[in-house]
Amino acid sequence: MPSALDTNMRFKFSILALLLEVIIIILFGKFVEYDASDASQTLYPIFQDVHVMIFVGFGFLMTFLKKYGFSSVGVNMLIAAFGLQWGTLMQGFWHMERGKIQVNIKSMINADFSTATALISFGAVLGKTSPVQMLILTILEITIFACNEHLVTEILKATDAGASMTIHAFGAYFGLAVTLVLYRPGLKNKHENEESTYHSDIFAMIGTLFLWLFWPSFNSAIVPEPVFQTQAIVNTYYSLAACTVVTFALSSLVDQRGKFSMVLIQNATLAGGVAVGTCADLSIHPFDAMCIGSIAGIISVLGFHFLTPLLATNLNIQDTCGVHNLHGLPGILGGIAGIVVTAIKQEVRQGVHLSPGMQAAALGSTIGIALAGGTLTGVILKLPFLGQAPDQNCFDDSVYWEVPEEEKPREIHTNNYDEHSRFEATM
Amino acid sequence: MPSALDTNMRFKFSILALLLEVIIIILFGKFVEYDASDASQTLYPIFQDVHVMIFVGFGFLMTFLKKYGFSSVGVNMLIAAFGLQWGTLMQGFWHMERGKIQVNIKSMINADFSTATALISFGAVLGKTSPVQMLILTILEITIFACNEHLVTEILKATDAGASMTIHAFGAYFGLAVTLVLYRPGLKNKHENEESTYHSDIFAMIGTLFLWLFWPSFNSAIVPEPVFQTQAIVNTYYSLAACTVVTFALSSLVDQRGKFSMVLIQNATLAGGVAVGTCADLSIHPFDAMCIGSIAGIISVLGFHFLTPLLATNLNIQDTCGVHNLHGLPGILGGIAGIVVTAIKQEVRQGVHLSPGMQAAALGSTIGIALAGGTLTGVILKLPFLGQAPDQNCFDDSVYWEVPEEEKPREIHTNNYDEHSRFEATM
Amino acid sequence: MPSALDTNMRFKFSILALLLEVIIIILFGKFVEYDASDASQTLYPIFQDVHVMIFVGFGFLMTFLKKYGFSSVGVNMLIAAFGLQWGTLMQGFWHMERGKIQVNIKSMINADFSTATALISFGAVLGKTSPVQMLILTILEITIFACNEHLVTEILKATDAGASMTIHAFGAYFGLAVTLVLYRPGLKNKHENEESTYHSDIFAMIGTLFLWLFWPSFNSAIVPEPVFQTQAIVNTYYSLAACTVVTFALSSLVDQRGKFSMVLIQNATLAGGVAVGTCADLSIHPFDAMCIGSIAGIISVLGFHFLTPLLATNLNIQDTCGVHNLHGLPGILGGIAGIVVTAIKQEVRQGVHLSPGMQAAALGSTIGIALAGGTLTGVILKLPFLGQAPDQNCFDDSVYWEVPEEEKPREIHTNNYDEHSRFEATM
Repeated sequence: MPSALDTNMRFKFSILALLLEVIIIILFGKFVEYDASDASQTLYPIFQDVHVMIFVGFGFLMTFLKKYGFSSVGVNMLIAAFGLQWGTLMQGFWHMERGKIQVNIKSMINADFSTATALISFGAVLGKTSPVQMLILTILEITIFACNEHLVTEILKATDAGASMTIHAFGAYFGLAVTLVLYRPGLKNKHENEESTYHSDIFAMIGTLFLWLFWPSFNSAIVPEPVFQTQAIVNTYYSLAACTVVTFALSSLVDQRGKFSMVLIQNATLAGGVAVGTCADLSIHPFDAMCIGSIAGIISVLGFHFLTPLLATNLNIQDTCGVHNLHGLPGILGGIAGIVVTAIKQEVRQGVHLSPGMQAAALGSTIGIALAGGTLTGVILKLPFLGQAPDQNCFDDSVYWEVPEEEKPREIHTNNYDEHSRFEATM
Repeated sequence: MPSALDTNMRFKFSILALLLEVIIIILFGKFVEYDASDASQTLYPIFQDVHVMIFVGFGFLMTFLKKYGFSSVGVNMLIAAFGLQWGTLMQGFWHMERGKIQVNIKSMINADFSTATALISFGAVLGKTSPVQMLILTILEITIFACNEHLVTEILKATDAGASMTIHAFGAYFGLAVTLVLYRPGLKNKHENEESTYHSDIFAMIGTLFLWLFWPSFNSAIVPEPVFQTQAIVNTYYSLAACTVVTFALSSLVDQRGKFSMVLIQNATLAGGVAVGTCADLSIHPFDAMCIGSIAGIISVLGFHFLTPLLATNLNIQDTCGVHNLHGLPGILGGIAGIVVTAIKQEVRQGVHLSPGMQAAALGSTIGIALAGGTLTGVILKLPFLGQAPDQNCFDDSVYWEVPEEEKPREIHTNNYDEHSRFEATM
Repeated sequence: MPSALDTNMRFKFSILALLLEVIIIILFGKFVEYDASDASQTLYPIFQDVHVMIFVGFGFLMTFLKKYGFSSVGVNMLIAAFGLQWGTLMQGFWHMERGKIQVNIKSMINADFSTATALISFGAVLGKTSPVQMLILTILEITIFACNEHLVTEILKATDAGASMTIHAFGAYFGLAVTLVLYRPGLKNKHENEESTYHSDIFAMIGTLFLWLFWPSFNSAIVPEPVFQTQAIVNTYYSLAACTVVTFALSSLVDQRGKFSMVLIQNATLAGGVAVGTCADLSIHPFDAMCIGSIAGIISVLGFHFLTPLLATNLNIQDTCGVHNLHGLPGILGGIAGIVVTAIKQEVRQGVHLSPGMQAAALGSTIGIALAGGTLTGVILKLPFLGQAPDQNCFDDSVYWEVPEEEKPREIHTNNYDEHSRFEATM
C-alpha cells in the first residue's frame, strides 16, 4: 500500500494526541483557575442535558452506518473530550480576568457548545477521514469558531442564544467546505458500506431522541434572564413538536409508496430545534415558534430528498450525514428568523438594542468565515500523510479499530452458522 | 390488494397530519400565551425526566418485537410530539385565564403526561394499526382523557398525583377496548413476527431502565408542596426497588426451569411505579410503599403469565405489550390504595379533605370512561380506509417504513453471505 | 447433571429473594422514616444522574459480552434494586436519630452509592456466578462496605468525596478476592463466549457514555459546601477529558497496527473519574485534575494490556471486565492523590483538619478489609448448591434466562440463512 494511504496511525496519532494534551495541560496550568464566585451553579442540570446531547446525541445519531458505529460513537467522544479542553482555552482567551480564564458551570456549557461545531463537521466527512485528520480539524475549527463567536456577540452585538448561526450554520458550512476540498471521485457511486442496517438505525434513534429531548436546554442554556430562559425552553419544545409532525407527514408524502424514511425521522425532526435557536429567547409567540419549526421540517426533508443528491453529483459535495439539511439550511432559517424578529419588534437584551442589520451581518460573517475556514482546513487535511483510508475502505471501522471477528472478514471467513452445519455434516 | 387493506398512506397520512398541524398552530395562535409569571421553572429538571420517559422510555420499551422497532420508537415519537400539542390545548381549555391558555414548565409536564395515555394504548394495539389510525386514536384519547382528568381532580376533588388512575388505568382500559373492537381472528395463533430477538430485548431494556429510573419524577412532578414532593420521590424509589426484587423472584418461580423471562423483567419491574402513584404523596410510610410495590410486582407477573393468554383466547383481547398487566391492574391497585389511605388517614391537600368515596368514584369513572371511549375509538378506527395492514403483515415495519435490505425480504432476496458464497462459487 | 452444578434456581432463588425482601420490608417498617426536614431536595437532579449511572451506566457497560447481555443489564438491575434497600439499612444503622433511620434525597444517593461496590465486584466475576450467588455477595459486600465507610469517614476522619477508595478500590479488590477464591481452571484458555460482537460493543458504549457524562455528579454528590461541590464537578470534567485523550493515544500506541481497542475506550476513558474522586473537592487546580486523569488513563490502559493477562495466568485471578484496571488501580491512585494533596495543603472540611496519615490509613484499611471480605465471601459462594454454571456454560445467558430461539440452540437449529441456501440447492 502506498505510504500516502498508510492507515496505520500508531505513532502519528498517539504522538500528536499526547503532544496536544501536554500542551493543553500546560496552558491550563498557566491560565485557568476556578471562578470561586460561581453564580452559574444552578445551570448544572442544564449543563448535563447539553453534555448528554454532545456525547450521546451526536455520537449515536451517526451510528446509522452499518460498519461505522465504533468510529461514530468513539471518535465523537474523542473529538468532544479533546475539543472541550481546547474550547475552554480558545473561548477563555477572549474573556480573561486579571490574566486568568475563569472556569465554572457556564464556561463548561460554552466549552461543550464549541465542540458541537466540530461534531457537526464530522458528520459531513463521516467515514472518509482518519482520527489524525479529525484532531487537526477540531483544533482549527474550534479556534476559528471562537473568533467568529467573539465577532458576532461582542463586536456585532448580535443575539444567537441557541446558536443557529454560530454553531449550526457554522459547523455545517465549515464541514461542507472541508468535504468539498477532500472530494473523492471514487465515492461518486454509492459505496457498499454507506448504508444502514435495521439495528444501526435503531441505535441512531438513541442519538436523535436525546438531541430532541434536551434541545430546549441547548437553546436556553446561556440565556441570562430566567424569564427569557423559560421562553426559550417553551419555544423550542413546541417548535420541535411541530417540526416532528411535519417531518413525518412530508416523509410519507415524498415517498411513492408513502413509507417513512429513517434518515428523515432521525434528522429532519431536529431541524425545528436548530431553526428556532436564534430567536427562541426573543419576544416571539409559541405560534411563531411552531411556524419556524414547521418550515424547518419542510426545508430539511426537501433538502435530504432533493438537494443532497444534487450537491453530490453536481457540486462534488459528499455530505455523509446530510448536515446541510439538519444544521445548514435550518441554521440559515434561524438567522433569517432572527433578522425578521429584530426588525419587527424592539428587542433589548442586556442593555443592547438588537438590530436586524447586525443580525444579518452576523449571519453573513458566520457563513463566510465557516466557508473560508473549512476550505483552509480541507487543504491542510489533504496532506498525504494524515492516514486517511483508501476509497474502498471508507465507512469501515476496521481500518482504525479492532473489530470483533464475525463482522469484519465476511469474504474470507465463514460464520458460526456455517461452521456448525459443516461440523454436523462431518458427523 | 383490496382497497380496504391498502396500506399506502402517502396522501391519507400526510394530508391528515398536515391538516391537524395547521389547525393546532392556528389554535395556538388564537389561544396560547406564555405564563410570564412562571413559578414552575424549578420543575425543569423533573420535566426533563418525564420527557425522557415519554420518548425514550415508552419508545424503547416497545422495541422488543424483532421487526417492529422503527414503528415502536418512531411512531411513539410521532404520537408524543403530536399529542403534547393537542394535550396542551385540551387540558388548557379547562383552565383558561382571560380567554388564554398559559403555558409554562408545569403545563409542559401535563402535556407530556397526556400523551402517556395514548402511548399506553399504543402498546395494546402495537403491530396491528396504521399511523393514520394512531393519529386519530391520539386525538380522541387525549380529548377524552382531559375531560376525565377534569372530572376527577376538579369535580370529584380526588387525588391522583402519580396518575395511577387517570393515566395508567385509563390508558390501559382505553387501549384494551380498542384492541377488542379491532379483534383480528387471524392473529389467534401466535404470529411469526410477534417475538423478540436477543438484541431487540436489550433495546427494550433501555426503555425499561429510563422509565424505572425517572418514575420518582413522574409521580412527584405535579405535587405542589415540596415536602410532599420529596415523599412521593422516596416512596416511588422504594416501591420500585421492592417490586423489582419480587418480580425477579416470581419470574423464576413461575418458570419450570427457574429461568428469568425478559418480558417480565422489562415490564413487571415497573408495576411498583404505577401502583404507588395515587398515594405516593400522601402520608404513607416507606414500608407501605414497599408493600404496594411488592403486591404490584406479584399481580403484574401473574397477569402476564396467566391472564394475558386467557384474555386473548377467551375474550378476544389481543394485548400486544401486555399493558393490562403493567398499567391496568397496577393502576387499579393504585386507585384502591388511594381509597384505603384516605379512609384510614385524614388527608388534606390544598384545602380539600380527601374522601375515600370520591377516590372510589374517580377510579370507577376513569375505568368506565376509558372503556366507553376506547370502544367508540375502536369503532371509528375500524373504518376500512385507514390503512391497517393485513394480518400476515402485522408486527412488520416494512409496511409503513423503508427498511434496510438485509432485514426485509428474506423470502425472495438472498443476503450478503449467500451472495458472497455464490460469487466465490463462480470464480 | 450432578447436583453440585444444578443451575435450575426456581426455588432457591425465588425463596431466597422473597425471604430477603420480606425481612427488608419488616426492617423498614421498624426503623425507617422520612426526614421531614429534608434539606437535600436540591440534590435531586444530581441523585438522578447517579441513579442513571448505577442502572444504565454499570448495566450497559457490561453488555459487551456477546451472549451475556440479559444478565449484564438484568442482574445489574436486580443487584442495584436489592442493594439500595439493603444499603439504606446498613448505612442507616450507623446514623440513627432517636432510633430511626431518616431517609431523604441524600440517603438515596448514599444507598445508590453502596450498590456500586457490589456492581463493581459483579464485573470481576461476570459470567461465572449465579443470581443466587450475586444476592449473597450483595448482602455481604454492602454490609462490609458500610462498616469500612464508617471507619474511614467517622473514625479516621479521612475524606473521600468521590469514593475512589471506599467504593472503587473497595469494590475492585473485594471482587478480585472473590474471583480468586472461585478460580476456575477450566476457563484458563479463553472461553468461546468470552468475546464481544459488533453490536454488543455499541451497547456497552451506552454504559460508558452515561458513566462518563454523569461522573461529575458522582464525585460531587455528597460534598456539603456548594463552592467545593462545583469544584468537584469542574475537576472531574477536566480529569475525564484529559484521561479520554490519553486513553485514545495509548490505545493506538500499544497496538501494532495502531488500531483503537473497544475494551480500552469503553473502560480506561473512565479511569480519570475514579482517580480524581478522593481529591475532587479539595483545593486542587484543574491542572492537577488533568494530570491525575492523564496518569489514570495511562495506568488503566497498561493494566488492561499487560497486567490482566498476567494476573489471569500467574495469579489465577480471572477478572472478566478488568475491574482492576478501571476501579482498582485508579482507585489506589485516587487514594494516593488524596494523601499527597492533604500533605501539601492545609485542608479543613467540616471542622476537621485532613491529615495525610489518616488518608493513608483509610486507603490501607479499605484495601485490607476489601480483600478479607472478598475472600470470606468467595468461600461462602463456593458452597456447591448455589447454582453456578459449569465451565462450558459460562458467559451464557441461556443458563438463567429464557433467550429468544434464534440465539440459543445453534447446534440443533438451522437458521434462516442455511434454510435459504438449502432451499435453493434443492431447486
